[in-house]
Amino acid sequence: GEYATIDHHRRLRCGFPEVVFGLNKTAEHIEGILRVMKRQGEGCLVTRVDPEAAEHLKRAFPEGEHNPVGRTFRIRREGPEPEKLGVVRIVTAGTSDLPVAEEARATAEAWNCDVALVADVGVAGIHRLFGRLDELRGADVLVAVAGMEAALPSVLGGLTDCPIVGVPTSVGYGAHFNGLASLLGMLNSCSSNVVTVNIDAGFNGGHVAALIARR
Amino acid sequence: GEYATIDHHRRLRCGFPEVVFGLNKTAEHIEGILRVMKRQGEGCLVTRVDPEAAEHLKRAFPEGEHNPVGRTFRIRREGPEPEKLGVVRIVTAGTSDLPVAEEARATAEAWNCDVALVADVGVAGIHRLFGRLDELRGADVLVAVAGMEAALPSVLGGLTDCPIVGVPTSVGYGAHFNGLASLLGMLNSCSSNVVTVNIDAGFNGGHVAALIARR
Amino acid sequence: GEYATIDHHRRLRCGFPEVVFGLNKTAEHIEGILRVMKRQGEGCLVTRVDPEAAEHLKRAFPEGEHNPVGRTFRIRREGPEPEKLGVVRIVTAGTSDLPVAEEARATAEAWNCDVALVADVGVAGIHRLFGRLDELRGADVLVAVAGMEAALPSVLGGLTDCPIVGVPTSVGYGAHFNGLASLLGMLNSCSSNVVTVNIDAGFNGGHVAALIARR
Amino acid sequence: GEYATIDHHRRLRCGFPEVVFGLNKTAEHIEGILRVMKRQGEGCLVTRVDPEAAEHLKRAFPEGEHNPVGRTFRIRREGPEPEKLGVVRIVTAGTSDLPVAEEARATAEAWNCDVALVADVGVAGIHRLFGRLDELRGADVLVAVAGMEAALPSVLGGLTDCPIVGVPTSVGYGAHFNGLASLLGMLNSCSSNVVTVNIDAGFNGGHVAALIARR
Amino acid sequence: GEYATIDHHRRLRCGFPEVVFGLNKTAEHIEGILRVMKRQGEGCLVTRVDPEAAEHLKRAFPEGEHNPVGRTFRIRREGPEPEKLGVVRIVTAGTSDLPVAEEARATAEAWNCDVALVADVGVAGIHRLFGRLDELRGADVLVAVAGMEAALPSVLGGLTDCPIVGVPTSVGYGAHFNGLASLLGMLNSCSSNVVTVNIDAGFNGGHVAALIARR
Amino acid sequence: GEYATIDHHRRLRCGFPEVVFGLNKTAEHIEGILRVMKRQGEGCLVTRVDPEAAEHLKRAFPEGEHNPVGRTFRIRREGPEPEKLGVVRIVTAGTSDLPVAEEARATAEAWNCDVALVADVGVAGIHRLFGRLDELRGADVLVAVAGMEAALPSVLGGLTDCPIVGVPTSVGYGAHFNGLASLLGMLNSCSSNVVTVNIDAGFNGGHVAALIARR
Amino acid sequence: GEYATIDHHRRLRCGFPEVVFGLNKTAEHIEGILRVMKRQGEGCLVTRVDPEAAEHLKRAFPEGEHNPVGRTFRIRREGPEPEKLGVVRIVTAGTSDLPVAEEARATAEAWNCDVALVADVGVAGIHRLFGRLDELRGADVLVAVAGMEAALPSVLGGLTDCPIVGVPTSVGYGAHFNGLASLLGMLNSCSSNVVTVNIDAGFNGGHVAALIARR
Amino acid sequence: GEYATIDHHRRLRCGFPEVVFGLNKTAEHIEGILRVMKRQGEGCLVTRVDPEAAEHLKRAFPEGEHNPVGRTFRIRREGPEPEKLGVVRIVTAGTSDLPVAEEARATAEAWNCDVALVADVGVAGIHRLFGRLDELRGADVLVAVAGMEAALPSVLGGLTDCPIVGVPTSVGYGAHFNGLASLLGMLNSCSSNVVTVNIDAGFNGGHVAALIARR
Ligand SMILES: Nc1ncnc2c1ncn2[C@@H]1O[C@H](COP(=O)(O)O)[C@@H](O)[C@H]1O
Ligand SMILES: Nc1ncnc2c1ncn2[C@@H]1O[C@H](COP(=O)(O)O)[C@@H](O)[C@H]1O
Ligand SMILES: Nc1ncnc2c1ncn2[C@@H]1O[C@H](COP(=O)(O)O)[C@@H](O)[C@H]1O
Ligand SMILES: Nc1ncnc2c1ncn2[C@@H]1O[C@H](COP(=O)(O)O)[C@@H](O)[C@H]1O
Ligand SMILES: [Mg+2]
Ligand SMILES: [Mg+2]
Ligand SMILES: [Mg+2]
Ligand SMILES: [Mg+2]
Ligand SMILES: [Mg+2]
Ligand SMILES: [Mg+2]
Ligand SMILES: [Mg+2]
Ligand SMILES: [Mg+2]
Repeated sequence: GEYATIDHHRRLRCGFPEVVFGLNKTAEHIEGILRVMKRQGEGCLVTRVDPEAAEHLKRAFPEGEHNPVGRTFRIRREGPEPEKLGVVRIVTAGTSDLPVAEEARATAEAWNCDVALVADVGVAGIHRLFGRLDELRGADVLVAVAGMEAALPSVLGGLTDCPIVGVPTSVGYGAHFNGLASLLGMLNSCSSNVVTVNIDAGFNGGHVAALIARR
Repeated sequence: GEYATIDHHRRLRCGFPEVVFGLNKTAEHIEGILRVMKRQGEGCLVTRVDPEAAEHLKRAFPEGEHNPVGRTFRIRREGPEPEKLGVVRIVTAGTSDLPVAEEARATAEAWNCDVALVADVGVAGIHRLFGRLDELRGADVLVAVAGMEAALPSVLGGLTDCPIVGVPTSVGYGAHFNGLASLLGMLNSCSSNVVTVNIDAGFNGGHVAALIARR
Repeated sequence: GEYATIDHHRRLRCGFPEVVFGLNKTAEHIEGILRVMKRQGEGCLVTRVDPEAAEHLKRAFPEGEHNPVGRTFRIRREGPEPEKLGVVRIVTAGTSDLPVAEEARATAEAWNCDVALVADVGVAGIHRLFGRLDELRGADVLVAVAGMEAALPSVLGGLTDCPIVGVPTSVGYGAHFNGLASLLGMLNSCSSNVVTVNIDAGFNGGHVAALIARR
Repeated sequence: GEYATIDHHRRLRCGFPEVVFGLNKTAEHIEGILRVMKRQGEGCLVTRVDPEAAEHLKRAFPEGEHNPVGRTFRIRREGPEPEKLGVVRIVTAGTSDLPVAEEARATAEAWNCDVALVADVGVAGIHRLFGRLDELRGADVLVAVAGMEAALPSVLGGLTDCPIVGVPTSVGYGAHFNGLASLLGMLNSCSSNVVTVNIDAGFNGGHVAALIARR
Repeated sequence: GEYATIDHHRRLRCGFPEVVFGLNKTAEHIEGILRVMKRQGEGCLVTRVDPEAAEHLKRAFPEGEHNPVGRTFRIRREGPEPEKLGVVRIVTAGTSDLPVAEEARATAEAWNCDVALVADVGVAGIHRLFGRLDELRGADVLVAVAGMEAALPSVLGGLTDCPIVGVPTSVGYGAHFNGLASLLGMLNSCSSNVVTVNIDAGFNGGHVAALIARR
Repeated sequence: GEYATIDHHRRLRCGFPEVVFGLNKTAEHIEGILRVMKRQGEGCLVTRVDPEAAEHLKRAFPEGEHNPVGRTFRIRREGPEPEKLGVVRIVTAGTSDLPVAEEARATAEAWNCDVALVADVGVAGIHRLFGRLDELRGADVLVAVAGMEAALPSVLGGLTDCPIVGVPTSVGYGAHFNGLASLLGMLNSCSSNVVTVNIDAGFNGGHVAALIARR
Repeated sequence: GEYATIDHHRRLRCGFPEVVFGLNKTAEHIEGILRVMKRQGEGCLVTRVDPEAAEHLKRAFPEGEHNPVGRTFRIRREGPEPEKLGVVRIVTAGTSDLPVAEEARATAEAWNCDVALVADVGVAGIHRLFGRLDELRGADVLVAVAGMEAALPSVLGGLTDCPIVGVPTSVGYGAHFNGLASLLGMLNSCSSNVVTVNIDAGFNGGHVAALIARR
Repeated sequence: GEYATIDHHRRLRCGFPEVVFGLNKTAEHIEGILRVMKRQGEGCLVTRVDPEAAEHLKRAFPEGEHNPVGRTFRIRREGPEPEKLGVVRIVTAGTSDLPVAEEARATAEAWNCDVALVADVGVAGIHRLFGRLDELRGADVLVAVAGMEAALPSVLGGLTDCPIVGVPTSVGYGAHFNGLASLLGMLNSCSSNVVTVNIDAGFNGGHVAALIARR
């Protein structure tokens, strides 16, 4: 119609199909977009799917996979599962950061990476992190998801030589200013292998981690 | 004169003599204040003394002690050195945080505490901190001085059960916004034993640490 | 499970058990955590408990104590009541600051301090404060809870020689910017014995006051 | 010339002649304006006069009065001194606030008020203020000049029934953000007789205080 | 009780009884406070009364006066109406500023002033203001209530020689930032007879205007 | 060389030659660029020329025209003067706004418009503006240059039916925040014919005014 | 009544009738205003009409035109359709920017321009924009509506020689700060033919575009 | 000494030697650090070297390489040049962004990557970018350095499938707020392959690009 100028060539140009940003779209609208993409033989990923839309999509596409914590919905491309292209490890500071971390996980998995998640190992009890460093070995890239003062990527950055994609979250209150404190913390990290994406941007974190890992 | 309403009873009321804030005061003006306080039998501390004023004060009071990094000038109270009243340990993330840390040290020493400093153990190389934890044992209070993302008090906070006085510094650039990033980091620390003072406020950090330590 | 990395050793390391942050947790989830902690012989404190969760917890743990203003729920450790370890006095500027002050009170009481509260003695009617100074005498530490321009800790700071933990609140409107004005007021206090915690952070204020008082 | 559209009728319309804002004007330019105003029989006030311009003006107008702290230059209207029209009292929190307070004093004096100043009675040593309340009695209006957390107008506001004109100053550092903290403190005062002018705006404070006092 | 430290002497000290800030108080709580004040022979004013509380109060005090736009409830002091003490004129830029302006009006009327209001004469159609200047003549003080760019007090300030109390409102959107734009506009007014109170603070504007007018 | 990718086709694409932004360029560097452009038969305009660079350029190009207030340097295209393409009128609130206004004037003149300037008619003395409205009649577009609260474009906007390009300036202090107050004022103008450019962006204001006027 | 000072002469003065800002007005209130305007022979435009008010207005004025995406309601002036006065083209970066773009479209159409819209051609897939440049040719002015980083007007600005009215939208999250990021992007555009209006201000964008186009 | 806790094992842990941040260090201090690192057989990189320090270092280490635009000083590790490990391409929007871009270039070269730079191809003349896309092909990662509205990484992001490291610069004025506008632009990029580092952080950009490229 008049209002949408779809970007069909994105896979050709960028190596990935377009991802549907579910926020503010009706379930019917999302369903329509997915039907078109499926017809073109693409797998598809939808982010920011609310619970009602997820129910609708699960009925419409029973083969789809819903990640209720990460708020994603995925339909795999048909054919045999392709081999994994790189290793992404996702780390969270607290349990409240999980929705953002799961969004990152679902994205990197859709982009065909070997992904695992280590949760709730923030720096206020840093032995928790040290006890699980083994699970991070071999990673091509780390995604560090943290709210509050967001010190996690700085600590990780000093312990490893791989790039760290910091995803600040809005978890906090008062002088946290909806994620600003976490964002500034990551941008000013004294570990120079830390890069930053937008507040709560789990999709961006997972996407760029996959891009880095597949190199 | 008309313009100054001196607070002579502060030692009685608060347990400490007033401290002279040297910024924007002429060397002669500071000298005058110190002469009055000395006459009253008080020891005195001046903070934010610039190098020229320090030269002037060293000539006027040869018994005075100048801390050129911390920018302080101190004249001890006459009589035997009193015994130490508590243990303060000061920790810095980087070497650029030293002027603020030394201001804290000079203040806590003037308040008669047992003070020591561990410098340049920021979280980007966290083994440096772990290698020196011994020096922090037995502290009644820690002062954590840090710029950039200021993750140090959070990490310290999880390793100890004593109060941590965080002093954010203006060390950083760009999105550091002259210390705002460090300040927000400390205010949002996930370690709940962290309290915060103003940016670059080494005097306040050392002062309140001494108050806590002497209890 | 995969998602939670519990910090069981906190009492050993830090002297206090972990505190459950009730916000965004279901009543059932909180109940589960409390059952585990109780089994380990720990007392427990939950903060930010909403009224429905409180009803649930009161049914599940009839021995628990609910502070409805402070939004806390506490289960005491079994055995005889330990003796008080220090004196904490909490002061509020207005009646609207009470929820934050009660959160601080419940925390410092759980940490076994002698705690009392003086409410609604803000500086616009400063005789109210002077009339109740007696109740503050003997304190090891004061917690000053204030919204609006938050001048209370500055005035208290000049009247006493103990540390003042300032807790800025979001009480105010317009150019208060949800607590920013109160926070900046405390950080810039001309009384150098004032330290600051996050906006509305009654838990942090009470926790660190207890740490200071028990020294 | 083309560039200036002078406002000759201001005295008629507003009761005061225009005041020359000296900042960024050459001494010669200021001299020229003063010569025109003098020719029209007006007294004149110049604010924000730097020391060099002041020397120039003192040579050009030996009858002029220079307030070096307040950075003003005044030429009185010829004729007998008119009687005082109202009572303005100016109070400062610290000695560093004096330049702003003196600018207010010079302005209110030029507007023919009975003016006096009480300096350095900030709330960190509130007995200093109570010791000098006598000097404030009988005031039609108070001007409270304060930096740092700027609690002074709130305390004054509760002690008196006259309007308080708060002038926040840029005295402070770190999270003071060049006066923002003081400004927000005054705007959020819990004393409802406080109004606020711009940061460091001694002229505005003195001007509006005179307007109020002469009613 | 423990929680409220009432300020009974405010009329003696300040000339006015305390005003009840209705926000976040239950209707029953407000009723209780009013009963106490009435018993003491005081008139009373409540601000920020929501519609349900107003219904309750009208039933409890049939002699009370409810201003539904200004959200105030007033009970007059018994005895003959005192004579008016000064002239306050309130001006608004738009119709959306009326709730704040009516709060100011109700306050200044309760403080016994001669009050009138000129609405919707903002500067985008400045002839509307010029057509009603007559109604402003004779004012001891003007209250200018404006949102958006809040240019009204600047224009008024140049047309009159009386003090202008600017009340910025949160009327606007986008880069208005909930009143910040209006607040900064008033603080930076090129008319030096403008003073400012907090965003949406109609009570403060009316209160201080009454203080100025009764001189 | 490697570092500059010059935009030679701008006149073809956009109707104007590129303008040289003089800030941070050496006089020799600017001279070199101008020689290239001259060789291509273009007229040229340089903005933000500091006094030393201007002296250099005047020696190098004696036919050039230097606007010392507006900080521009212009070399006209050879050939007969083209006829004027539209009417631009520039208005300033104060004399301190002149450098920005002159930059706008020089730009619109270089773009071949009929330009005139009305200075120092800010709203604190609004009769000054009314006395000069005649000079604005017939304009295709107005450029309103203002600092402080920047109310001028709002007032102009209600008096005319042409577009108003608002140029906020950094003229102000304290809560002006280097032009932020003026910028927000213009963005929130209640006159809907006002558009805004960057703070102090006289070039942008004059450029877009010329684009509008020549339609 | 007392509260509204209607601006009847706006068409005479400014060439357009006043537009009704529907936000916070009851449907009945809007209907009343429209009846008055209709009686005066004016066409009318209402913006920010919510769905319920729209239903009411459609019943009251069956000849009215409701734009449900743009949230406008328009009643045409009686008589033959006037000829189009200029060409406005509106471009959006994403589909979420459509409500703002449709508000601009409805406004420019009501002002009698030839208007068309090109949607969803943001710079992350810039070939979409290049594929539709034809539809922009011949425009007197472009309106560029964009959220996120709002790069669209900068790219458009380099491709055309007409003025670009940038309308930043609040589409984004996290560090978008409700439109601030888009606003700053447009204000700092390196394309000097870009001017900016308030965040989400579709009405202002369409209005000023019409003013420019009709010249 | 007491003050420095050197991180000798960084190459082992992280794959790179520590980099010396030259800002606020004396030339002698830098020389000393370099002598130690050289003795350990490390190559070394110093960033933020001012011109005087560079002269000193060039005399002390004639084999060193000074990048005067990028403000770096490098001493290569002895032995044969290692082979290149990955392809980094750096792109700048304007010529003023070059110092930051050269800092990135020098860093990525020191980390042994194949690096090239394409300068001054910002989006206001987007044909300049299209004309040089060939030079970007084959890159493992792009570094996009841009001030003003910083639209460059968004456009690049849509044209390629590799990660884009955005480095916002402080190039701009007024509402650019020293780089904030560029930073927000990049964080809100609609191209999801963009990550961001601190304002003017050329070192961080080059460092992380090298980390990504060598995978
Ligand atoms: N470096 C500092 N930072 C902040 N406050 C200080 C500092 N040094 C001294 N002070 C405070 O400043 C007061 C003295 O200020 P003054 O009267 O201006 O000399 C002392 O009572 C201290 O509380
Ligand atoms: N009201 C509160 N505000 C801030 N932090 C809290 C609060 N209550 C508990 N905490 C902290 O939150 C941690 C537990 O978080 P969680 O694992 O999410 O339950 C505890 O260790 C406390 O340090
Ligand atoms: N609308 C209002 N805005 C700001 N302050 C108010 C308002 N109404 C009353 N107040 C102030 O709030 C005080 C009473 O607060 P409270 O004790 O919470 O009822 C009064 O003394 C007034 O100074
Ligand atoms: N004073 C100014 N403010 C903002 N942009 C300018 C100014 N002068 C010139 N420009 C723009 O800067 C571009 C040239 O920048 P440069 O390549 O650095 O010389 C021109 O195309 C103009 O669009
Ligand atoms: Mg946890
Ligand atoms: Mg170091
Ligand atoms: Mg009260
Ligand atoms: Mg003092
Ligand atoms: Mg109106
Ligand atoms: Mg003037
Ligand atoms: Mg799209
Ligand atoms: Mg260029």
